[in-house]
Amino acid sequence: MTTLCHTEYLWFQTKNLHEFVNITDEVERIVDSSNIRDGMALVSAQHITAAVYVNDAESGLIADIEEWLKNLAPMNKDYRHHRTGETNGYAHLWNLTLGHQVMVPITNGKLDLGPWEQVYYAEFDGQRKKRVIVKVMGVTE
Amino acid sequence: MTTLCHTEYLWFQTKNLHEFVNITDEVERIVDSSNIRDGMALVSAQHITAAVYVNDAESGLIADIEEWLKNLAPMNKDYRHHRTGETNGYAHLWNLTLGHQVMVPITNGKLDLGPWEQVYYAEFDGQRKKRVIVKVMGVTE
Amino acid sequence: MTTLCHTEYLWFQTKNLHEFVNITDEVERIVDSSNIRDGMALVSAQHITAAVYVNDAESGLIADIEEWLKNLAPMNKDYRHHRTGETNGYAHLWNLTLGHQVMVPITNGKLDLGPWEQVYYAEFDGQRKKRVIVKVMGVTE
Repeated sequence: MTTLCHTEYLWFQTKNLHEFVNITDEVERIVDSSNIRDGMALVSAQHITAAVYVNDAESGLIADIEEWLKNLAPMNKDYRHHRTGETNGYAHLWNLTLGHQVMVPITNGKLDLGPWEQVYYAEFDGQRKKRVIVKVMGVTE
Repeated sequence: MTTLCHTEYLWFQTKNLHEFVNITDEVERIVDSSNIRDGMALVSAQHITAAVYVNDAESGLIADIEEWLKNLAPMNKDYRHHRTGETNGYAHLWNLTLGHQVMVPITNGKLDLGPWEQVYYAEFDGQRKKRVIVKVMGVTE
Repeated sequence: MTTLCHTEYLWFQTKNLHEFVNITDEVERIVDSSNIRDGMALVSAQHITAAVYVNDAESGLIADIEEWLKNLAPMNKDYRHHRTGETNGYAHLWNLTLGHQVMVPITNGKLDLGPWEQVYYAEFDGQRKKRVIVKVMGVTE
């Protein structure tokens, strides 16, 4: 039994300003190629205007989530952050609401997810290159 | 010194639709039985209408948390997700607000928690079987 | 290649009730001294009225975050938790909003952060001693 770390990066350049991308299969592929049988995968956005979260792959719910985020932190508010020239204050707050990372458990070489759990990358300020790190740590066997 | 991973599942079937269950002792028991002296325990809900969080074991605060969640994402709203036949749109948003997982540090074979830190399973759509994974990773000494 | 765990504690006693402290350099220093080249650092508040999060080191944004928290969970509300003699009900809810911990990936012995990612300790009930645990787990090379 050997302890291993395996790291890959996922790159995104979404067409739309906001986009919800199901990355479960990508994470599964990375775990497969790591040869780790038991451990955890850290899936973490490396930008502060995007989120990584786990929930349902249901389009109605995804629209509910976006509307809810718009209520919690409106897009068109005059944020102090905008004095730097930025226009994405809301996107920072959405990142903080959903969180920027998850730990996915790995058992018998597979993602150990519940029946409806899917891993999502949520882009809140897209149309440019953004990155997610997937770092798998665990043991072979 | 050996690297170990140890996994157990906790099952819940709450009497009420919403319930806050202190699972600190259960997590401690699992860490004890893992023989891991230094490491981390991932405690993660495997359903997307429940949360795992760390905070105070104080009944007034727990009632405050539930009232706060009801304000942030009302239960009786006409969520798009309900077009699938579901009625638990709010529970998905509460899961996203509190988060579905925590990492508990382990030092000298014990949960390394602050004076008031307790690990909670928060059920938002109960009265049926739900599961939490506890995966402990670390080293023996 | 050896698996290692390395643990240090950061102590805070802020001058103000609320304070946002950039702890990225402290975490980097702890990772340096761990001799871990590939792995993860758990950075976790051990008090339930403070947060640890990752976002931008921009003072306008930090003021936006505090104002946003005050809107989501007002400071002067009559929380049930206050019947215990406490006055910090809001601070518990702010902790739950931002989260109390992050996992920082480590690659080639360095924090593997995106261009604007900084690790923050957010104190919501300060002017007394509070603690953060930093536990680094990974492999030497």
